[in-house]
Amino acid sequence: MSIRPLHFSAFVMNTTSHILQGVWRRPEAGQTNFNSLDHWVELAKILERGRFDVIFFADVIGLYGDYGGSYEKYVHSGLQIPSNDPSVIASAIAYNTTDLGIAITSSVIQEHPFNFARKISTLDHASHGRIAWNIVTNALANGARNFGYDELEEHDERYRWADEYVDVAYKLWEGSWDDGALLQDRERGLHGDYAKIHKINHVGTRYRVEGPHLVAPSPQRTPVLFQAGSSPAGRDFAARNAEAQFIITPGPEQARVLIDDTRRRVVAAGREPGDLKFFQGLHFVVGSTEAEAQRKAGELDDAIDLDAMVAHLSGAVGVDFGGYPLDTPLGDIGHTDGVRSIVDWVQQSVSGRAATIRDLGLLQGRNSRVVGTPETIADRLEQWRAAGVDGINVVNATIPGSYAEFVYHVIPVLQDRGLAQREYSPGTTRKKLFGSDLLPERHPAAAYRGAFTPVRA
Amino acid sequence: MSIRPLHFSAFVMNTTSHILQGVWRRPEAGQTNFNSLDHWVELAKILERGRFDVIFFADVIGLYGDYGGSYEKYVHSGLQIPSNDPSVIASAIAYNTTDLGIAITSSVIQEHPFNFARKISTLDHASHGRIAWNIVTNALANGARNFGYDELEEHDERYRWADEYVDVAYKLWEGSWDDGALLQDRERGLHGDYAKIHKINHVGTRYRVEGPHLVAPSPQRTPVLFQAGSSPAGRDFAARNAEAQFIITPGPEQARVLIDDTRRRVVAAGREPGDLKFFQGLHFVVGSTEAEAQRKAGELDDAIDLDAMVAHLSGAVGVDFGGYPLDTPLGDIGHTDGVRSIVDWVQQSVSGRAATIRDLGLLQGRNSRVVGTPETIADRLEQWRAAGVDGINVVNATIPGSYAEFVYHVIPVLQDRGLAQREYSPGTTRKKLFGSDLLPERHPAAAYRGAFTPVRA
Repeated sequence: MSIRPLHFSAFVMNTTSHILQGVWRRPEAGQTNFNSLDHWVELAKILERGRFDVIFFADVIGLYGDYGGSYEKYVHSGLQIPSNDPSVIASAIAYNTTDLGIAITSSVIQEHPFNFARKISTLDHASHGRIAWNIVTNALANGARNFGYDELEEHDERYRWADEYVDVAYKLWEGSWDDGALLQDRERGLHGDYAKIHKINHVGTRYRVEGPHLVAPSPQRTPVLFQAGSSPAGRDFAARNAEAQFIITPGPEQARVLIDDTRRRVVAAGREPGDLKFFQGLHFVVGSTEAEAQRKAGELDDAIDLDAMVAHLSGAVGVDFGGYPLDTPLGDIGHTDGVRSIVDWVQQSVSGRAATIRDLGLLQGRNSRVVGTPETIADRLEQWRAAGVDGINVVNATIPGSYAEFVYHVIPVLQDRGLAQREYSPGTTRKKLFGSDLLPERHPAAAYRGAFTPVRA
Repeated sequence: MSIRPLHFSAFVMNTTSHILQGVWRRPEAGQTNFNSLDHWVELAKILERGRFDVIFFADVIGLYGDYGGSYEKYVHSGLQIPSNDPSVIASAIAYNTTDLGIAITSSVIQEHPFNFARKISTLDHASHGRIAWNIVTNALANGARNFGYDELEEHDERYRWADEYVDVAYKLWEGSWDDGALLQDRERGLHGDYAKIHKINHVGTRYRVEGPHLVAPSPQRTPVLFQAGSSPAGRDFAARNAEAQFIITPGPEQARVLIDDTRRRVVAAGREPGDLKFFQGLHFVVGSTEAEAQRKAGELDDAIDLDAMVAHLSGAVGVDFGGYPLDTPLGDIGHTDGVRSIVDWVQQSVSGRAATIRDLGLLQGRNSRVVGTPETIADRLEQWRAAGVDGINVVNATIPGSYAEFVYHVIPVLQDRGLAQREYSPGTTRKKLFGSDLLPERHPAAAYRGAFTPVRA
């Protein structure tokens, strides 16, 4: 059996310090330039040199929860504050590239679906069909309070909200304009076919939207759909809707279990197993020898701000581990369920002593890290591929450094082994990933095709 | 007294048929390519060749009201349907230009102010301070129904809504981050100064927004503020908030009256007369001789779709003039106040017979048209300048043709007379227009500077 190449995505954020906290302090770290279009265009061009499929923008719409009682640590470490809008820099990236997909995270809380659907369709036209949407609900209390809510919605309710949100968007993208509605016929003076452009008259729990969609069908109509939730509600949502899921598992075997489980849910939702691709998050430390790679990994450990790593996790899980010295035993902190499960996880990584805050930071910093020569990294990626992983979401230590290193040193070895594509296949991002511009008929969005076309007697 | 140059703005929309309906059917009309970034980048580069100050994107968030009982005519004539999001193409324009301001229309109904303020700040960084915002309320019933409202808010209530909306945005742009809050200090490992980044805790009638703003202060902080409303509530809103007002008056003398009245309101609002600049909308038909210009004006008349011109006005004023033959006397249609005032206006333009629908369309098509050689056009613009107009918002018949013609043939003559700038002055759009990057202290937004900084004991 010949191996299929892995897909590659660059996991970035329009901020200084995304995942590997503290590394921005290194002189070679360019991520402090996130305000600049040059920074992003330069990165995108490097990614295209390496035939990456996607640049994937994570996002937040508020602060993480308090750490040591305030958001001071987030500000000091540039930890996703400031955090700029990713959607409005996409057209500059699109204009200066030809094949790279551009995935934008957007939460259902932050924008009305009518406006959002219009924005995405505009971008899908502008990029000739290279837009993807990472569908998220909002899990940050400050994010909720930025948008007029007193507190977070209950978890499963957030997914019911997302269900209606995507429904409105699907109706606009797939149902409002029939194929052939845009004519631009100068001879007949007919710009559009009125019989093929429909109001959607959506009336739901949270939204009422009349339509029609204001944008003519874009190359992909619905953007490629990413999702990252791992809760049962999140996995079911992904099984119904997503075409790519971003996962972080400790190793290939755990990935296989998760993928098998989720693919069963995909089939149960009436779709085919291959309709959902899995992207594992990994970061790479590359050396020309193992020794050099290990030395660079040590330097990376030194560059990481362990307290900020803990702050990020803390904010993400809603447990305040802040304000303690790094050698505080984790077991001395609070007694909530959230704390207990984290303590257990970290304790497994140390033996013969009580795990500390420092251990938690170190574990976070080394999580999903692959250290080696291009050849041993390729060996490792072969194992991920064999476990059923479809793609790698490449986490960075520095921008553009981490990607330049990967593209110029690792990708050629992967290409030689058939693990990375040498050339782009033509067409839209969905065409490149799945072989067709549009969602398949078995996807729920497809049910709205023709749904608003009046039935002729 | 030496004359100051006029400012120039290109009045465009991310659609096929914006103002001069029907001209897209001409073979040289490129506006059908509005889905393409190439189309907009090419135009922007032409505008920079002509030292235009701004590309100004009008926008709608729904259909105009029914014409002949439906939206068929709008679809047939490409009349602002499809209509793409202007904000997400701005970064591609910014990346490929250096000095052109980019004005984006956005309605208070379409986006939550927290998300909007973040988007604008991101773009202002990306463009090095070249973003302007045309503040609009929504006057389209379909637009309201696309966003969950049963009907339009009452007119003055829409401006109270806008008052709160800009207040939230001002707090985020001017008050949330003090000067010097972003440090990016690698040595000390301090990315930001916590003491200078504040929540805004806005609690109002329509919005509750905690903050802080997610984006560090951009070059202009608050974008340059455009406004176009001409009602008393609209003029008062502009007098308090706007830095540039888009006007359409029949001639220089009427412009002078309007400008004098509005400037009085500006002063009454505690600002200085020059804090608000006035841009008159005009479109130009240029010939190397008067005879050629007149011939081209005739060709333009022939290219215009009179029925669509009436449909646009109809939709804008909420009176359905649709479904009648073009030679129907206007007096035969309905009897609402809206109809009566339009009939009176058109009747003044014809003598000795009853004005018809065709007259209404012709009048709309020739509205604000200036026909002549570059020299006679310059004469005419001198009169507008002398009447106190600060800038011209140049309406197009074709894109990029109308602008290329103006830039290559008219601008040089204007430059020779000191009526158009030969070179850009350096800096942000506000710096170019008003001499400083930031709003002056007397603008209401400035009241929020330092407003959220805790008072030290």
